[in-house]
Amino acid sequence: MTSARLFSFVGADHGPWQVINSPYVRGEPMAAVTHINRLAGESKPNNATWVLRGVTSNERYVESEEKKLLIAKQEPLGRPASDCAAMILIRKNETWWKLSQNERRHILETQSKHIAIGLRYLPQIARALHHCRDLEEEQPFDFVTWFEFAAPDAQAFSELVLELRASEEWNFVEREIDFRMKRSL
Amino acid sequence: MTSARLFSFVGADHGPWQVINSPYVRGEPMAAVTHINRLAGESKPNNATWVLRGVTSNERYVESEEKKLLIAKQEPLGRPASDCAAMILIRKNETWWKLSQNERRHILETQSKHIAIGLRYLPQIARALHHCRDLEEEQPFDFVTWFEFAAPDAQAFSELVLELRASEEWNFVEREIDFRMKRSL
Repeated sequence: MTSARLFSFVGADHGPWQVINSPYVRGEPMAAVTHINRLAGESKPNNATWVLRGVTSNERYVESEEKKLLIAKQEPLGRPASDCAAMILIRKNETWWKLSQNERRHILETQSKHIAIGLRYLPQIARALHHCRDLEEEQPFDFVTWFEFAAPDAQAFSELVLELRASEEWNFVEREIDFRMKRSL
Repeated sequence: MTSARLFSFVGADHGPWQVINSPYVRGEPMAAVTHINRLAGESKPNNATWVLRGVTSNERYVESEEKKLLIAKQEPLGRPASDCAAMILIRKNETWWKLSQNERRHILETQSKHIAIGLRYLPQIARALHHCRDLEEEQPFDFVTWFEFAAPDAQAFSELVLELRASEEWNFVEREIDFRMKRSL
């Protein structure tokens, strides 16, 4: 039985999303790929250079007022006008994972404004967060975040990422890879 | 690559822990077994009636002061004097999982005193919480909690469970099975 919340992220030499950047890397890099596919369920195509897995899950830091704002403003993945995508892979260090819930929330939101920053870019930037840390097979990253937006919003998306990357929270990020994509023709 | 945090819980007709109760059940019951084994890693013995899986993970609700108290007081599983064990399987309903982080924390601790109640029974009752919800294969429960204690503390353990079961938090529990065990001879 496969979870309906499980997604596979396949890096290969063809697929619906074409990588258009030389990915930003902090920590160990990954094998280069020209295309990426986000697939529901478990998937291991023969031609894959790598496959990552993650599950969409309950939110770990969002409080009730923030949740109302998010629900009111956010739009789903798969919008026809979204011809751009990004996939950001994050691994946080052991110090982060040993913090208590209130310490992590304090860094993430009180200091780093992670949720508030993301809210400013809604509804243009659609987003799905996938947790990898608690899967049965150990994964190279803790999170896969997948974003979709229209080409005119690509600059705003870059600013969003830079803002988060400059925050206190990112001091706990020990590995990050940032792929930018456009729809394959 | 198997996660070092993954555990398998095997119900079978022999094993290191002998079931000594007619398990308390809320919601759908499980096939009866006489013995249970908690094993590190992935395990699927041929004689298993069922196998559950879960991962130990970061804490989701414990705040810094509580964490200090827990670390100061708690003892590990596997103590030679612990000749009793319990395995409590919990599934919470969709309403719970749709709450925001602060709403869940409010119910779990402000209203239900889950962490404070558990602290009162340390160090006698050793405990390991395993998360099942985000595993690749969908699991029948959200949590497996494993407890170990010495026979003279069995009554205190029963009181701990009854206290939690009477709390507001348990209104969100839609399935629960509570196995009590002693070491097999």
